[in-house]
Amino acid sequence: MDRTRLEAFSDGVFAVAITLLALNLTLEGPGHGIPLQHQLWEHRWSFGAYLLSFFVIGIIWVNHHVLIRSIAKVDRTLLFLNLVLLIFVVLIPFSTATVAQYLPVGGEDVKAAMAMYSAVFLGMSAGFGSIFEWTLHGDHRIVPLPPEAHWPARLRFVGGSSVYVISGVVSLFNAVIAFILIALVAVYYIVERTPAAPAAESQPDK
Amino acid sequence: MDRTRLEAFSDGVFAVAITLLALNLTLEGPGHGIPLQHQLWEHRWSFGAYLLSFFVIGIIWVNHHVLIRSIAKVDRTLLFLNLVLLIFVVLIPFSTATVAQYLPVGGEDVKAAMAMYSAVFLGMSAGFGSIFEWTLHGDHRIVPLPPEAHWPARLRFVGGSSVYVISGVVSLFNAVIAFILIALVAVYYIVERTPAAPAAESQPDK
Amino acid sequence: MDRTRLEAFSDGVFAVAITLLALNLTLEGPGHGIPLQHQLWEHRWSFGAYLLSFFVIGIIWVNHHVLIRSIAKVDRTLLFLNLVLLIFVVLIPFSTATVAQYLPVGGEDVKAAMAMYSAVFLGMSAGFGSIFEWTLHGDHRIVPLPPEAHWPARLRFVGGSSVYVISGVVSLFNAVIAFILIALVAVYYIVERTPAAPAAESQPDK
Amino acid sequence: MDRTRLEAFSDGVFAVAITLLALNLTLEGPGHGIPLQHQLWEHRWSFGAYLLSFFVIGIIWVNHHVLIRSIAKVDRTLLFLNLVLLIFVVLIPFSTATVAQYLPVGGEDVKAAMAMYSAVFLGMSAGFGSIFEWTLHGDHRIVPLPPEAHWPARLRFVGGSSVYVISGVVSLFNAVIAFILIALVAVYYIVERTPAAPAAESQPDK
Repeated sequence: MDRTRLEAFSDGVFAVAITLLALNLTLEGPGHGIPLQHQLWEHRWSFGAYLLSFFVIGIIWVNHHVLIRSIAKVDRTLLFLNLVLLIFVVLIPFSTATVAQYLPVGGEDVKAAMAMYSAVFLGMSAGFGSIFEWTLHGDHRIVPLPPEAHWPARLRFVGGSSVYVISGVVSLFNAVIAFILIALVAVYYIVERTPAAPAAESQPDK
Repeated sequence: MDRTRLEAFSDGVFAVAITLLALNLTLEGPGHGIPLQHQLWEHRWSFGAYLLSFFVIGIIWVNHHVLIRSIAKVDRTLLFLNLVLLIFVVLIPFSTATVAQYLPVGGEDVKAAMAMYSAVFLGMSAGFGSIFEWTLHGDHRIVPLPPEAHWPARLRFVGGSSVYVISGVVSLFNAVIAFILIALVAVYYIVERTPAAPAAESQPDK
Repeated sequence: MDRTRLEAFSDGVFAVAITLLALNLTLEGPGHGIPLQHQLWEHRWSFGAYLLSFFVIGIIWVNHHVLIRSIAKVDRTLLFLNLVLLIFVVLIPFSTATVAQYLPVGGEDVKAAMAMYSAVFLGMSAGFGSIFEWTLHGDHRIVPLPPEAHWPARLRFVGGSSVYVISGVVSLFNAVIAFILIALVAVYYIVERTPAAPAAESQPDK
Repeated sequence: MDRTRLEAFSDGVFAVAITLLALNLTLEGPGHGIPLQHQLWEHRWSFGAYLLSFFVIGIIWVNHHVLIRSIAKVDRTLLFLNLVLLIFVVLIPFSTATVAQYLPVGGEDVKAAMAMYSAVFLGMSAGFGSIFEWTLHGDHRIVPLPPEAHWPARLRFVGGSSVYVISGVVSLFNAVIAFILIALVAVYYIVERTPAAPAAESQPDK
């Protein structure tokens, strides 16, 4: 079984999920008395959440690309681990919409919304980590990672995922800080290489 | 005609259908007085139905992948049999949303919803089975299946599809048991190979 | 410029359009007093319109596949003719939903809805015909069609498109007959080869 | 890293965005007393906005195709510049729906809607321009563009993008003129080659 169709299906899901994000951006039609500029301003959190989720999906897509390319042979286990990753990717538009709805209101609900948002990202991160773990065993990689590089690579993963654990805990106290925390990590990942990427990417170059 | 575009189109439909599943997950916005945690708990059946349908589509995608790869030549008959499969795949988000809406309520309606859910899966299973049957005839397979292997392979199919017949009948008495039945089969299919896969998959390895 | 990305983009649009068809299938949630079986029966026209539009998109996808494969070189003109085809494909879910809404009601509106439904299919057919016409000129085909085969091929096209003209006119008198007319043509196209296909498909086999 | 998956993902996003445009076309169901023909006429701006946005996405897709094919090697910077382009592509259905809602009403709001519509197109144009700028440096192009051709190519870009700046300014005075302005540019781009295309396309032919 080759990687082409795994990539095609995953790319389809990533593309649909990233586009559905914007479905949640809707303004009131005319006749509600609120000028459009005010509506846009009131929706600033929606736009922020849209932007953040867009880049988180984008980052995971870039890393997915790199990770799958390092794989020698696709088997059923990989296909189902990939489904676990995708199930959380598909939940991102839903959790983004919930956060966007509750962020302007504040209160207890926004903390729950933000905790759910963090949990979905954590699940996505765990799904991605499980694929990475799978590549470390057997002859799954085109160029095997030397055993002494396994733990440093895993630690980088734990580091990446732990941000979502921290933001989940922080969200129970202050949702906005949790939101900014996730955003900072996304910016870091765009500027720097992601925790997973160096190991996955540099290997084939050796 | 090659398999590439059949796969690309099918993967597109699978990817969109699997992502649209989550469109039905929507929470009430702020101002309804119900805390978000309670809402999430009230939607537990929606999440369960989402998860189950996600994995059923995922399983059928994995098996579709394997089956199409065993095919030597794509003809018009195959393209239309594939459309019959896809018509039921596309109905899954609709039937999932209906089940998710009625499961918390109970009564007669949830039985009808569950019967429809089973019927859509049965239709999908029959569409998949008709493609498999098509591969058994003529020189449709790259490596023909020996005639003595036809009936065992078909029986495995009937076995797989019959679960949806049973869950359809069970749903007229108890929708939750029917739901659990379908879920158990999905778990079985993820852990074990599917009824169709052994024949379809092992052949090219010979 | 090769055909791969033209096909990938078109397949994406076909796949999304065919899946969005089912988005219009929604039942009332619990608490409306109408048993689910009755609702399903009341939606029989929605299901019929869904089924018909699904197969019309499916047929055009199959023929698109065959036609694009006969093309030697993709140029900007082809890309924009293809966009004209796709603009009508994308309108199908909208026109299907309108027909499904108005068919149970009858009256003048359903005639307008049915005329629009025919017009969208006619536009799609014209877009497809313009791609076919483009292939007849210059050195656009891998295997050029001999000039004496041009008019018979065009006539088959006019024959196919004229069904939608007729159904458009008929719909002004009786929407149900117009609907059945389009359905009969779809069934005919599935069983037989389409007007466009023989010329487009048989050529490369020579 | 090859171009295949970058193209597949981008095509997926383009395809979903172009198809979601039509999701905003919805008519009132029966029982509202407005004949369907009148409703269709009242929605003429929606259809116009749908048509315009469809072709703007189509044009950018065609140019994206040409630009990506001129690239020698895909790196992380390109992937993220591509995400910046896509984030605006994904916003087009939202801004189109807003324009379509407010155009029939007029007043201050339609000017804001039209300014937003121009801003989204400007962002898309800037994202595309940043990818083009990236191709000019290092050994990113298969066939490098000679340095003396850089500024003419950039000027063509500034020319293309400046239309959206102008339409943004015009929309503050008259939204309909701004709309017609964008439409004229789209027609021009369909008939003629786009500002970016000549440089990007002619180079590999040398």
